[in-house]
Amino acid sequence: MEVSGGDLQRLRQLNSLACLRVLREAAPLTVAELSKRTGLSRASAVEVVADLRERGWVAEVPPAQGAMGRPARRYRFRSDAGHVLGLDIGVHKVLAAITDLNGEVVASGRTSVSPDVPRRERLAAVDRATAACLSMAGLSPRDIWAVAVGTVGVVNRKGRVTTVHSIPDWAGVDLTAHFKAAFDVPVLVANDSKLAALAEQRMGVARDVRDLVYLHVGRRPGAALILDGRLHHGFGGGAGEVGLLEAVRWLGMGEHLEGLPSFAGSPPDQVAGLVFGAARNGDPEAVAAVERYAGDLAVGTAAMVLTLDPELVVLGGGFSRSGDVLLEPVRRALEPLCLRMPELRLSALGENCVVLGAACMAIDEVNALLLSADDPMERARLYD
Amino acid sequence: MEVSGGDLQRLRQLNSLACLRVLREAAPLTVAELSKRTGLSRASAVEVVADLRERGWVAEVPPAQGAMGRPARRYRFRSDAGHVLGLDIGVHKVLAAITDLNGEVVASGRTSVSPDVPRRERLAAVDRATAACLSMAGLSPRDIWAVAVGTVGVVNRKGRVTTVHSIPDWAGVDLTAHFKAAFDVPVLVANDSKLAALAEQRMGVARDVRDLVYLHVGRRPGAALILDGRLHHGFGGGAGEVGLLEAVRWLGMGEHLEGLPSFAGSPPDQVAGLVFGAARNGDPEAVAAVERYAGDLAVGTAAMVLTLDPELVVLGGGFSRSGDVLLEPVRRALEPLCLRMPELRLSALGENCVVLGAACMAIDEVNALLLSADDPMERARLYD
Repeated sequence: MEVSGGDLQRLRQLNSLACLRVLREAAPLTVAELSKRTGLSRASAVEVVADLRERGWVAEVPPAQGAMGRPARRYRFRSDAGHVLGLDIGVHKVLAAITDLNGEVVASGRTSVSPDVPRRERLAAVDRATAACLSMAGLSPRDIWAVAVGTVGVVNRKGRVTTVHSIPDWAGVDLTAHFKAAFDVPVLVANDSKLAALAEQRMGVARDVRDLVYLHVGRRPGAALILDGRLHHGFGGGAGEVGLLEAVRWLGMGEHLEGLPSFAGSPPDQVAGLVFGAARNGDPEAVAAVERYAGDLAVGTAAMVLTLDPELVVLGGGFSRSGDVLLEPVRRALEPLCLRMPELRLSALGENCVVLGAACMAIDEVNALLLSADDPMERARLYD
Repeated sequence: MEVSGGDLQRLRQLNSLACLRVLREAAPLTVAELSKRTGLSRASAVEVVADLRERGWVAEVPPAQGAMGRPARRYRFRSDAGHVLGLDIGVHKVLAAITDLNGEVVASGRTSVSPDVPRRERLAAVDRATAACLSMAGLSPRDIWAVAVGTVGVVNRKGRVTTVHSIPDWAGVDLTAHFKAAFDVPVLVANDSKLAALAEQRMGVARDVRDLVYLHVGRRPGAALILDGRLHHGFGGGAGEVGLLEAVRWLGMGEHLEGLPSFAGSPPDQVAGLVFGAARNGDPEAVAAVERYAGDLAVGTAAMVLTLDPELVVLGGGFSRSGDVLLEPVRRALEPLCLRMPELRLSALGENCVVLGAACMAIDEVNALLLSADDPMERARLYD
């Protein structure tokens, strides 16, 4: 059979990517272990490792101390060769984090913002958090290989924020342009609930699941879908917005927690937590309020569950830290509404869920460029 | 670079599959045209065609009459080399169809059943329709390479009907076993709305779209989802059942059409058509009834549209033949509920939508086996 030069090139690239994938997921490996795990011949594995070392993607690991004789050489993926930046732009705060290429956080920072500040001030807070992370990590913008930005509001497929109910002066903001001014790398923008779902599927309680509905539950509920292992954006970027349908009862849901007379006068951004705390202590009025809230949450959730029949529903976001009082009422309200009750799990990622999801999205972008014409490693070498 | 025997085998198979894919979609092609469309070298294309001819997948086409000189040889995919069987088991009828490997119908048959017959009788009707199609097509069961069965009710991932509201004695039926008794080939079972959606995406008004919500609208509404070009089954096979949620208003929807006093006494399976006809003629009571029906249909549809943000919604199923009176009321009711109004199109596949979708599903199964160890062409040759 005739085998073209193009065929060989493609085979070589597939073999290299297979080796990188195995190396990223494992402790340092010898060539023999790499050959076994990828199915490549030893000779091919030796050749691929040499090529990847030369490009800078792989490094040799010094033998363990006290090793006897001449141990086989071991190799690791250079996850510290590059970094990505993730942002979480919310109503009350901005979070930023810098991670290595395996998603390990090397620096993170959080700054508060007032809900009603104009665009200019919110962007200034974003810049301060970003600069702080670079400084703490000892990196410059040139060391960042991709940026992903999570934000409140619906984000269309072009990365523009189109619809926002929770903060003023944010619809239409061009976050891509804002970051491109400082970082000459791929910049991605997505709705915050979507990124939280992505983090959950990559590194959270949903990492063994292909289809899930993620409930981003806080003062303003959101939802996102992972289908067949991938984030579902929707044709206009607006997937997950079932809460906008009045019939599914999410529009007035927050009032059950924020409208209780006993808690009138509490700061609006704290009252829900206070109600959950009182419910935890058995206060009957608070317990009843949480039941009503859970009941409404269940209707919108059921609409999504009946539509998709997902394996799992994850409860995450700001209210998930009160999951111990919320989870069972939600389960009890949801079960009678479903044809097949999915698993229901609480997120364990806490308030970093969005910024970790942003890091995942940025790393996915880097992965897509590995060994291609736009390989960021090649560009980085130009600066050395 | 070292290239293993396994690598060459895989390349050969990929090249053969690429050629088959191109041949199936095109009029008979010369080797030069095949080489150009697949990107293979001419030498590789010649070798692949020879191999596929020997296996029986490709045949030479006689030169056109009156062709001058010595025209280049042309080749076609032998879509008539095998056939598939599709079924549509409904409340009031059973449809069967036999198609070739490109989905062209060679025979089809329909038989009526009463809604309340026991399982045994419904299966007997299925067998009669199947036998009639084989007879009309001049084929025997051995000529059928895959069977796909559409049925009312929720079908789990194992092919068992689990939940049925519309007919008695059908939950738990093992349709796979029923067909395996007569056809020793892959047998697939799916909910009828899902197959209608599949047909729409493969050969209907949705063939240029990756994400769509299909509304299977008849006396009992159903829905199905195509996401990223593929049917979305759901973890338990129950995707699309949003109608079971009372809040989205599908449970009582039929009453708007079937409960009109002026039409009391009409046969239940005809009254909706009579109401649509009266609405078409401008009868105010009928027009109002259709508006109410459309309004309720829009709420359940909006729940799915807001969840998924699909590019397109298709209105199909029994009521689609009255689409001229139904479509605009549905559009008017749906638009205010959506964040981004999707396109709304009427199905043109008529009442064969399910059985055509079954044929698509069966052909997909045959495609998956092409050139593999279970290649049905190899087995067929044993009988020659």
